Order: sequence, then structure tokens, then C-alpha cells
Amino acid sequence: MSQTQAFPNATRGETRTVQIREVGPRDGFQNEPETIATPDKIRLIDALGRAGFKRIEVASFVRPDVIPQLSDGIEVLRGIDLPDDVDRMVLIPNSRGLDNALAVRDLFEEATLFVSASQTHNTKNINRSVEETMADVAVMGKRIVAEDLTLCAVIATSFGCPYEGPVPMDRVLDLAEQFAAAGATEIGFGDTTGMCNPAYSRAFFEAAIERLPGIEVTAHFHNTRGQGLANAYAALEAGCRSFESSFGELGGCPVPKGSTGNIATEDLVSMFHEMGVDTGLDLAAVIEAAREAQSTLGRKLTSHSIVAGPVTWYPAS
Amino acid sequence: MSQTQAFPNATRGETRTVQIREVGPRDGFQNEPETIATPDKIRLIDALGRAGFKRIEVASFVRPDVIPQLSDGIEVLRGIDLPDDVDRMVLIPNSRGLDNALAVRDLFEEATLFVSASQTHNTKNINRSVEETMADVAVMGKRIVAEDLTLCAVIATSFGCPYEGPVPMDRVLDLAEQFAAAGATEIGFGDTTGMCNPAYSRAFFEAAIERLPGIEVTAHFHNTRGQGLANAYAALEAGCRSFESSFGELGGCPVPKGSTGNIATEDLVSMFHEMGVDTGLDLAAVIEAAREAQSTLGRKLTSHSIVAGPVTWYPAS
Repeated sequence: MSQTQAFPNATRGETRTVQIREVGPRDGFQNEPETIATPDKIRLIDALGRAGFKRIEVASFVRPDVIPQLSDGIEVLRGIDLPDDVDRMVLIPNSRGLDNALAVRDLFEEATLFVSASQTHNTKNINRSVEETMADVAVMGKRIVAEDLTLCAVIATSFGCPYEGPVPMDRVLDLAEQFAAAGATEIGFGDTTGMCNPAYSRAFFEAAIERLPGIEVTAHFHNTRGQGLANAYAALEAGCRSFESSFGELGGCPVPKGSTGNIATEDLVSMFHEMGVDTGLDLAAVIEAAREAQSTLGRKLTSHSIVAGPVTWYPAS
Repeated sequence: MSQTQAFPNATRGETRTVQIREVGPRDGFQNEPETIATPDKIRLIDALGRAGFKRIEVASFVRPDVIPQLSDGIEVLRGIDLPDDVDRMVLIPNSRGLDNALAVRDLFEEATLFVSASQTHNTKNINRSVEETMADVAVMGKRIVAEDLTLCAVIATSFGCPYEGPVPMDRVLDLAEQFAAAGATEIGFGDTTGMCNPAYSRAFFEAAIERLPGIEVTAHFHNTRGQGLANAYAALEAGCRSFESSFGELGGCPVPKGSTGNIATEDLVSMFHEMGVDTGLDLAAVIEAAREAQSTLGRKLTSHSIVAGPVTWYPAS
């Protein structure tokens, strides 16, 4: 997606082709308690590339002492061997992170800035107010766009905050407009602790698409209470055509304690393919990558398709 | 629900009140590898009664040597202490089972007959052709109605068969009409091995409601590939107002091997309540019953709400 091309958000009934960004290598790995060896990360990301993803979130430029698991980000970016048409995304937490990222500017195509829609969550997450963060965004956004990188945004706690409760839709969409003004061409809405429901998802994405013409509106759901795919289906019905998910159901925010986080990419792809929605992905290869992650991490992952596989519509012998 | 009262299937946009039948004590317990002690079953069913269920599937009149886990059905029916307005449902596999059930006719209010929509699944399940089964249904249905019991039906593999693949919608709805002709006032459609998707769910339930005026149309989904709640949401959107689910995500058909089966009642209730859909249930009490089942069975259950609890919308301290 170039920065200047408007994203074709769809309305119900139109032909359905969706974009899925795989976020497991950053948002997923980040939450693993055991350190994953750099060569393992590289091998798994290359497997994702072979599954057909055109967008993968690969690394974060957070301080290594804050998230040691991701301290090998540049090594990972250097080691992976993805097809030329795959966009590598990196997460930028602040100006220092942006400095470090731009020092290796040729290793990625997409840079993501983020904020939490709720004041308390933003403060607890990055120790700054929402207003301070958005002031930084305006400055960092300009630098990212000037480098001819794609500027993406993520708004966390878009559907509710574990500390503040309800988060007004208008507040979230106002922040989205600020990101768009800063040069973002894609804006993702994160259900950080799984508080969304399908009725709200539908209403939210209808409103977001209307308020953000030409912007790629991305749904990032968690499966905290088992409703992740229901929310994704509702967003699709609302016209959303861009999704983020994590292979193996890795990572995301485990709140309340012990909860699962991100929706599993292979479950999302399975649902979309069964509905006739084109993802451009090879489901069997996605499942294979997730199983490889399970084997590498040495623990049973919670994705359903890892166990059940794709639906088989031919008669079994 | 009396036999003669038409069920108010709804169309989109109307006020939403749903019925949820808890099927864990039969469909759930049936799949447990370890024998559950009769007093434990009774204690768990009584807990479900306190959670507000008005319909509970309690027992099956299958041969004890076929499903030993359910051989204490009559003892369970005698031991439970449910409020007077709770309908106790029993599953009737054949005429012999019906004889045995009618010998204790005062212990239940609803009797369920079933068939698989696909020939191969029906043969493997009960060793009879679909036609033979439906001939039995006509005879058994009359006997059940004559006893002033509510006759319910379940059509397994309504959304796909693991042996035959696709199952035509018309074939399923023809069988539903045969059940209605036999006196059934409620007809459930089972996604036995989790092959449905939300787009098909929506189309199917729109068609079923149109084809079966006055009949209560019930959705029975499995979470085999994580899409169970998405399918339930789509059925709700199509006008379906009657659902079956299992507390703790217990039971259902583990095909492919190792898969999860029934959707978890507490996850379904959580989704409905968040959407403003009235279930008449106390979600905290449903979760409590599921946690008690987890503790009694001594293994980690797969329900999400057991871990995450309900969404909390008030600010946390």
C-alpha cells in the first residue's frame, strides 16, 4: 500500500478481499516468558513469508531493558529472507526508538505509532498522557513520512479500558483523525483486553469507515472472552477489510491474568476462506507455521485450527 | 413452551430475548473419560438451576453399555432439585429408550429425538438409515405427544458431514419439516463437527425460520475451529432466538481428534449480555457452575470466561 493510495474500505455485499497483517513475531513473541533464540525467530518469520503474508510486524524499537525478548530486533530484520513484496513493519514507541529505527531505515517499509485511547492505560503503558503522546506523534509522523515509509497507527483500548471502563467512540475516532493528520494511511483499532462485542464492533467500524475516508481501517481483536472471531465477522459486515492477528494465538495482552490475547491468524483465515473471503494466504502453510511455533516454544498453543485443521469438504475415505 | 404455542422467531432489529438450553449434563458429561459420580452430577445440575436456566438437558435413555457415563440417568433425574419452572430434557435414541423413559414419565418435560442429516453419519452413529430413523420418529413422536410431553428434535451434521462433506440445506430443512409433522415444536440444528461459518449460519437460519413458521428454531454450534460464537451471532442476526450450549465448553463431538466441541454457555451468555440481548441468566452464577465443573472433573476446561470472567465496565480501583 503506498502512502497516497486510498484504501478501498467496502460496504456490505461487495466482493470481499481482505488484508491480514501477521503480528505474531512482535506482538506475539513479546509475551513469551522464555527467550526465543534469534535463529528460531528468523525461521518462523520466513515460514510466514512462505504462507503468503504481504505484511508482517517483525520488530519493535522499544528499549531492550523494557522488553528483552525483542532486543534482537535489528538482527532479526537483517536475518529474515522475505519475498520482495512483503512489507516489514516495526513498532516505534518514542523519538529515541524512531532514531534507532531510522538508523536502519532500509530494513523495513512500515512504521507504527501508538497510543491508548484511555488516559489511565496510556499512562500505565508508556508513562505519558494521551495529549503528550499525540504531540510526539505529530513530530514523529512527519519524520516517518519524510523517509517515504508507510505510517501506520494503532489505538489501544479502543473498545474499552480495564481501568476506566467505557471509552467513548468519538474520543477514539478523534484520535484517529489526529493520526491521519499526522500522515498515517492506516489506523488500527485494538481491543486490548477483549472488551468488544459483535454489535459494538459493527457499529464502530461503520462509523470509523465513514469518519476516515481514504484511510485503511484495521481491526485488531483479542479472544479474551472467546468473541474474537465474532467481532471480526461483525467488522467485516461493517465494511472493514483489514485485520491483524497472531499465528498460534500468540501474545496480546493477558488481562485479566491468564487470559488469551490476540485472535489466532489460522482461525481467522479459516473463517474467512469458508465464507468465500479472499485472504491471499495458504491456510495449510499458516497452520504449519503455527505448529512450528508450538514446537519451538514447547508449550500447547490455544489456536483451534492447530488441532482441528481446515474444514475438509471432500468425502473422507 | 407449550406444544401448541408458536415460537416467536424474530427478525433483525426487534427486541432481543433468547432462550438458552444448557446441554452440559448430557452432551457434555457424555464425553468425559472418567466416570462422574452421581452426587457430583446432581450438585452441578442444581447449580445450573440456580443460575436461571429454564431448560436443561439432563439425561439420555441410551443403552448403559453404549454410554456407561449416562447409565445413572434415572437416578440423576430423581436426585436433582430444580425450580418448578425448569424443563428437564431427556434424549431418546430409539423405541426401547422411549419405553424406558415413559416408565418414569413424570421425571421430565421435554423429549428429544434426533437424526443425522447425512446418511453416513447417521449409519455410523445409530446403525440405521436416515429413512428408517425418520419412520421411527413418526411413531415415537406420536407416543411422546400423546403423553403431553414437549417433543424436540435435533438434526446432526446440519452444516456439513465429516464423511460426506457438504449437506444440502434443502435436505436438512426437509427433515425438519418431517419432524414438525411428527409433532416437534422445537427443532435444533447441530454443527456436529464444527463445519459451519457465519455467512452460512446467517443464510441457513433465515431460510429455516421462513420454512418452519411457528416452530422454535434452535442453533447448536460447536467451537471446533473457534467460530462458534461468530456462528451464534450470525444466527441471532438471522432472527434465531433459541440456542444450546454447554457450561465449561464441555463435550460435543471431538472430531477431528482432540478438537473442542460445544460452545461454552458462559462465553455465549457473556457475548449476548454485552450486546444487550436478554438471556434471563445470571452470568456470574453460570461461570461459578463451570468453575465447579472444572474442579470436579479435575482438568482445565477450555471456556474463556472461566479464566477472564465477565467484562467489567466500572473503573477498577
